[in-house]
Amino acid sequence: MDIPDFRQNTATRLGQTRRISLDIAEPLSAEEQVVQPSEDASPTKWHLAHTTWFFEEVVLKPFDPGYREYDPRFNYCFNSYYEALGPRHPRLQRGLLTRPTHAEVLGYRAHVDEALRRVTGDGAAALPQAAWDLLELGVNHEQQHQELMMTDCLVLFAGNPLQPAYRPAASEEPREPLDVKWIAFDGGISEVGHEGGGFSFDNETPRHECLLRPFRLANRAVTNGEWLEFMNDGGYDTVALWLSDGWSTIQREGWRAPLYWERGDDGWSQMTLRGLLPIDPSRPVSHISFYEADAFSRWAGKRLPTEFEWEVASEGVAMDGNFLGHGALQPCAVANSEGLSQMFGDVWEWTASPYVGYPGFKPAAGAVGEYNGKFMCNQFVLKGGSCITPDGHVRRTYRNFFYPHQRWQFTGLRLASDA
Amino acid sequence: MDIPDFRQNTATRLGQTRRISLDIAEPLSAEEQVVQPSEDASPTKWHLAHTTWFFEEVVLKPFDPGYREYDPRFNYCFNSYYEALGPRHPRLQRGLLTRPTHAEVLGYRAHVDEALRRVTGDGAAALPQAAWDLLELGVNHEQQHQELMMTDCLVLFAGNPLQPAYRPAASEEPREPLDVKWIAFDGGISEVGHEGGGFSFDNETPRHECLLRPFRLANRAVTNGEWLEFMNDGGYDTVALWLSDGWSTIQREGWRAPLYWERGDDGWSQMTLRGLLPIDPSRPVSHISFYEADAFSRWAGKRLPTEFEWEVASEGVAMDGNFLGHGALQPCAVANSEGLSQMFGDVWEWTASPYVGYPGFKPAAGAVGEYNGKFMCNQFVLKGGSCITPDGHVRRTYRNFFYPHQRWQFTGLRLASDA
Amino acid sequence: MDIPDFRQNTATRLGQTRRISLDIAEPLSAEEQVVQPSEDASPTKWHLAHTTWFFEEVVLKPFDPGYREYDPRFNYCFNSYYEALGPRHPRLQRGLLTRPTHAEVLGYRAHVDEALRRVTGDGAAALPQAAWDLLELGVNHEQQHQELMMTDCLVLFAGNPLQPAYRPAASEEPREPLDVKWIAFDGGISEVGHEGGGFSFDNETPRHECLLRPFRLANRAVTNGEWLEFMNDGGYDTVALWLSDGWSTIQREGWRAPLYWERGDDGWSQMTLRGLLPIDPSRPVSHISFYEADAFSRWAGKRLPTEFEWEVASEGVAMDGNFLGHGALQPCAVANSEGLSQMFGDVWEWTASPYVGYPGFKPAAGAVGEYNGKFMCNQFVLKGGSCITPDGHVRRTYRNFFYPHQRWQFTGLRLASDA
Amino acid sequence: MDIPDFRQNTATRLGQTRRISLDIAEPLSAEEQVVQPSEDASPTKWHLAHTTWFFEEVVLKPFDPGYREYDPRFNYCFNSYYEALGPRHPRLQRGLLTRPTHAEVLGYRAHVDEALRRVTGDGAAALPQAAWDLLELGVNHEQQHQELMMTDCLVLFAGNPLQPAYRPAASEEPREPLDVKWIAFDGGISEVGHEGGGFSFDNETPRHECLLRPFRLANRAVTNGEWLEFMNDGGYDTVALWLSDGWSTIQREGWRAPLYWERGDDGWSQMTLRGLLPIDPSRPVSHISFYEADAFSRWAGKRLPTEFEWEVASEGVAMDGNFLGHGALQPCAVANSEGLSQMFGDVWEWTASPYVGYPGFKPAAGAVGEYNGKFMCNQFVLKGGSCITPDGHVRRTYRNFFYPHQRWQFTGLRLASDA
Repeated sequence: MDIPDFRQNTATRLGQTRRISLDIAEPLSAEEQVVQPSEDASPTKWHLAHTTWFFEEVVLKPFDPGYREYDPRFNYCFNSYYEALGPRHPRLQRGLLTRPTHAEVLGYRAHVDEALRRVTGDGAAALPQAAWDLLELGVNHEQQHQELMMTDCLVLFAGNPLQPAYRPAASEEPREPLDVKWIAFDGGISEVGHEGGGFSFDNETPRHECLLRPFRLANRAVTNGEWLEFMNDGGYDTVALWLSDGWSTIQREGWRAPLYWERGDDGWSQMTLRGLLPIDPSRPVSHISFYEADAFSRWAGKRLPTEFEWEVASEGVAMDGNFLGHGALQPCAVANSEGLSQMFGDVWEWTASPYVGYPGFKPAAGAVGEYNGKFMCNQFVLKGGSCITPDGHVRRTYRNFFYPHQRWQFTGLRLASDA
Repeated sequence: MDIPDFRQNTATRLGQTRRISLDIAEPLSAEEQVVQPSEDASPTKWHLAHTTWFFEEVVLKPFDPGYREYDPRFNYCFNSYYEALGPRHPRLQRGLLTRPTHAEVLGYRAHVDEALRRVTGDGAAALPQAAWDLLELGVNHEQQHQELMMTDCLVLFAGNPLQPAYRPAASEEPREPLDVKWIAFDGGISEVGHEGGGFSFDNETPRHECLLRPFRLANRAVTNGEWLEFMNDGGYDTVALWLSDGWSTIQREGWRAPLYWERGDDGWSQMTLRGLLPIDPSRPVSHISFYEADAFSRWAGKRLPTEFEWEVASEGVAMDGNFLGHGALQPCAVANSEGLSQMFGDVWEWTASPYVGYPGFKPAAGAVGEYNGKFMCNQFVLKGGSCITPDGHVRRTYRNFFYPHQRWQFTGLRLASDA
Repeated sequence: MDIPDFRQNTATRLGQTRRISLDIAEPLSAEEQVVQPSEDASPTKWHLAHTTWFFEEVVLKPFDPGYREYDPRFNYCFNSYYEALGPRHPRLQRGLLTRPTHAEVLGYRAHVDEALRRVTGDGAAALPQAAWDLLELGVNHEQQHQELMMTDCLVLFAGNPLQPAYRPAASEEPREPLDVKWIAFDGGISEVGHEGGGFSFDNETPRHECLLRPFRLANRAVTNGEWLEFMNDGGYDTVALWLSDGWSTIQREGWRAPLYWERGDDGWSQMTLRGLLPIDPSRPVSHISFYEADAFSRWAGKRLPTEFEWEVASEGVAMDGNFLGHGALQPCAVANSEGLSQMFGDVWEWTASPYVGYPGFKPAAGAVGEYNGKFMCNQFVLKGGSCITPDGHVRRTYRNFFYPHQRWQFTGLRLASDA
Repeated sequence: MDIPDFRQNTATRLGQTRRISLDIAEPLSAEEQVVQPSEDASPTKWHLAHTTWFFEEVVLKPFDPGYREYDPRFNYCFNSYYEALGPRHPRLQRGLLTRPTHAEVLGYRAHVDEALRRVTGDGAAALPQAAWDLLELGVNHEQQHQELMMTDCLVLFAGNPLQPAYRPAASEEPREPLDVKWIAFDGGISEVGHEGGGFSFDNETPRHECLLRPFRLANRAVTNGEWLEFMNDGGYDTVALWLSDGWSTIQREGWRAPLYWERGDDGWSQMTLRGLLPIDPSRPVSHISFYEADAFSRWAGKRLPTEFEWEVASEGVAMDGNFLGHGALQPCAVANSEGLSQMFGDVWEWTASPYVGYPGFKPAAGAVGEYNGKFMCNQFVLKGGSCITPDGHVRRTYRNFFYPHQRWQFTGLRLASDA
């Protein structure tokens, strides 16, 4: 019996995705992979193990009668936040997991990969559709952790006095910044959300109508150069620009620039995956909180787009861009082009939309129902993916979400205005 | 020259409102009025002074050339959060303001009231429209603080081991709880927000279209009896019912019931403005957080309404109910009636809507632009007013807002569902 | 049957002491007496009630069969830290006790005073010696709270933007500071601790021998002028002067001067019980922590005396000085005199001695055994009393104790050195 | 020219000590050596580097003109708390030091060891006495860190859900616990402190006279079995046994047993360097705070000895015992013997003595003056060394010190009483 094409596709992408995780970890030694660099971030080794645990716990144990659990203690070690799957190691102590060792985690991966190859190869016919759906979810889940492996590595290296580079920088000519152009969009009723056909997370559904007013979007993301203007104009000292919670946050934290920026004798530099680099004014600003994005937009006399404005505007925009496969590992200056640029890749763009469920939203059944739904409070939606998002991971309807104070992701912004 | 009617109306309501604040404070001694009972709450005396400061700073000093400032140090003492109006006494130290004394604050009120009578009486013709608008704002501002005076007094008395009553309870027969009925509403495009004509806060504007799907609303608020069912069914112990932030909140705070509930040998009682009373199953549940309201609605297989569903449904519902003037000082059991009950008064109803600006929202000009706009983050909208909201204060379009963990207001919920 | 003289003496001092507490509270209104101004400090009303509770709970209830308890709820309200006497209102919420009202607390005092007069008057013969001992303890206990009433009032007024004075300052000529003279003392074995005959706290016993090396003591306390030299010489910025815990404390708290000092255009001022006054260089420095005293002594090339050096040196020094009855309410400049000055009164002098039990120390029996013993850890001994210590309260053997970071008492220092 | 014997001795012990550190680290992989397991503890790799930095910074750079600094950035990375030696990496972020790598740190050690061999070998004659003294200090410093490497490894493994053993346990027969015998000692004037001749830390000097009263010491340490009696008798629930700060600590932390104890179906077990083992009633109790030691002694009707009682009693006791070289890696049951047992090795014994400077104490000159003196506040003295103290490290006069709440060292107690 033949495997249908889409299943073959899942199996292929599964194998590729599993390999890419190892590729991402490869430049890091075992001692680099074990450390938890902050409360938000997790150790590389933990990411490698947790993504493996996901397949073991969600696919292999329920659906593969012949599967032999690798180590019964790993469920406790590598469950992240699934209450339905039992007690787990405290999030803030992930860095204490020197055991299982790095080598054991690689063994765990090999064991699970072997089982995944079996159930998607010779055993593919026996695997019910529900399991294939969960495999597809597992691929997307692992892609999300690939992005986290990169951002969390940057936290680690930025906290190290030797300021190492994940990968050294190639010498590059700074590009000339381009002026913003404003693209106008009509209002009216539009459909938003995922329409089915291919994978999506539950939080992108159900597809539904929304009502928009005419609006304009900037053709590109806000740049470091523009952010320096904001700083030089006293942006961080002007209370009238800030949400009340934002103002108290920047006072408490002492923020006066994006995360990883440091001022030296020769001006501002930024710690990046390519080490400490001078600020390039033409690249998109990154590592800013929602509060900062919001204050900047007020300073500029504009506003953030809603998630639906962004989604409607993105129709027809090609979903390629500066993603992980591009290899830049940092946001890149926009090229001279027509229409909307940098919608996909470069930086996650903060929207004005609180992260809540769509009308009629129902979480997925089972433990994976905890994947998205229980976080629908106190966070904001971001769109478009970043320079370290794995290729093929995001969609127009993709909804990323973070708390308004968080900055360790590659987060930036694009301005909008009423028409 | 005659004063137009609407101005006369403002002047009249101004005088009434100023008197009601004193009436509310009257049962409390000076030593009761000085204490700050919690981080959220403020001293009664501070409320009396701050509402007076508002008129002095926002109306009299800018618009009345003959006004003599009462005491230049009071701006520092009684500014709440208006960054544009200078530095101020720290919020958490309001209880240290034993000076100015209670008597001095009453003198301050008399001085400002005298000036207000002058500018709205003999001097009314000279007062520009902007000042009249701000007077109207001041009236509504003071009404909000009247509600806070009551809730903050309850915080104070609930924290006192002698559990005093603000006003003793009249003996009352408990009413029979009524079954819920579900009222259906059509979807489609509706107009929401304030349409002008009469006072509104800036956050109720601009009026705009929204798109709703068909929905149902419960005809009454959720009762204490229903909440006890939720508790007895393990609602506070069932993680699957809770938002992630809600679950961590109730664990951290040890919440196992609404605020002010305490379990005794004879079952549950609740500290109220009328002292410690046994839980009455027929009254609306109150003093719950958004997290608890959300979890309850999930347990009930329903959801919270959005603010727009609530607003559209409220069309045609009379804006009377169990408000402050009714004198109950606690939510009351619903009477047998047709249609939607308890929409106005009794308890503020949590909605599913994060508190953000409406499309095209512009904060009011000047310092009062800080009134609402800078809080449009991390909070949720509540509708309808409570048993201690001053009569005539709320509107269908009125948007109250609190953080999802806050419980010291008279906050409850009404269930909704998709049609 | 006649009452022995010493009992008559106790009865007389009891009456006087109870009256003095009311005198101290008298300038403060009810609304000033209810507020808890900091975590360390308590409301005046609470002090008035707690000292009364002490007599009721420790003397009247156990020893007076005819005593009628004033209100059974007051034990919960006004117990401070006696675990043996039942649960109690949380220390940090003493400011919530608007009820019982100020008037009720005065009634409580009158009721207990009446009973105390009875048992020490007509009923004196029936009262066993243990009760007389506890009455004497209660007098000394109330005196300690009289000092706290003053220091806590200063916390309250210093936290008030209007900076009120407890009692206005008389105009006074600043006195010329006197040079330090060094008084030498021999070493050898000396007896320290209370020798019996008259009241002492249990922590002053047993009297025992200690071995001292020859040492010198400064003839007077360190002055504000000397402290300014320390500040101007970078004392607060020189890490080598500080204990490690002291350095981290002043960094965390941002201390750059004694408590209540503020720098204005005309130099330094200090908030005092007589309002905000310019720093007088000739007066003893006050409101410094042990850490600051220790750092100053290192800066000066000296050290703090031990409690035993202080006690031995104090032999023969008259136990009068600038105490509460003197009326200055602040430390005073030393007069030109022979020998040791300012040993008693003016400021509590930090010693180098950790507060631990003397060899063979046994806490008093019963609930009052919690009075001192359980605090013998992490604190330091201070000697000599202050400008607000009630007259007749301290002795040469008196051991006051505070944590090394605490500054809200009238705490200063006297330098010592090896001979 | 020959090197004097005592210098040869220092050179020999230097080489041995440097090797022992590597031996201790050897069972741990690079990924185990990089993690900081708690605020109190440091990574193994950091200990290896810091002890090396100490020799480089304190001996080689000042005294060896030919020394080539290994990496100028390491001073920032591996300075612990020496303010005089410049800014340093924050203590709580030592676990972020994935770079320099484990291999680089080994290279650093080799480089410094090579230089140390040179200056103490061929160059020994040129090295001034001050440098030899600092070498001796460096040896003792590294021995202290060897003990910390073991205790910090236990923190790491105890925090790991797999509960690994540093070295597996040999099967062993539990020994029969022996009854306590009380040894009496006379009072009088004794000399305490280091008398010179051989190395000591500055805090052991100057030698001075102290005055003791007659006392008794238990002949052995308190055992696990006795601690279980304390627990079973409600020791952790009886407020009257505890210092006030101790009681609030155990409430806040939820302590109901020594650190690392856990209750299972078969009774209590304890995480040790040999993995999770059942509690052996005959072994000394370990991993208790001063607060617990103090409460236990009160429960037992005894008290803790002072440091001077302990020191005087130890005269004539052989300074051997269960130290690191013994290989047990845990406290051992006492053998049947005469006189005082377990004075050296097994567990550090809490004394009743706050850690302060001796009369006439002067810190060592230079940066190493920060070694001990600045910590003379808020800590307590412990005596005798533990089962993981390097052989030959402690002396009768040795003063270890920890805060009263700390439990991660091998800390126990021995009872004392007045004679």
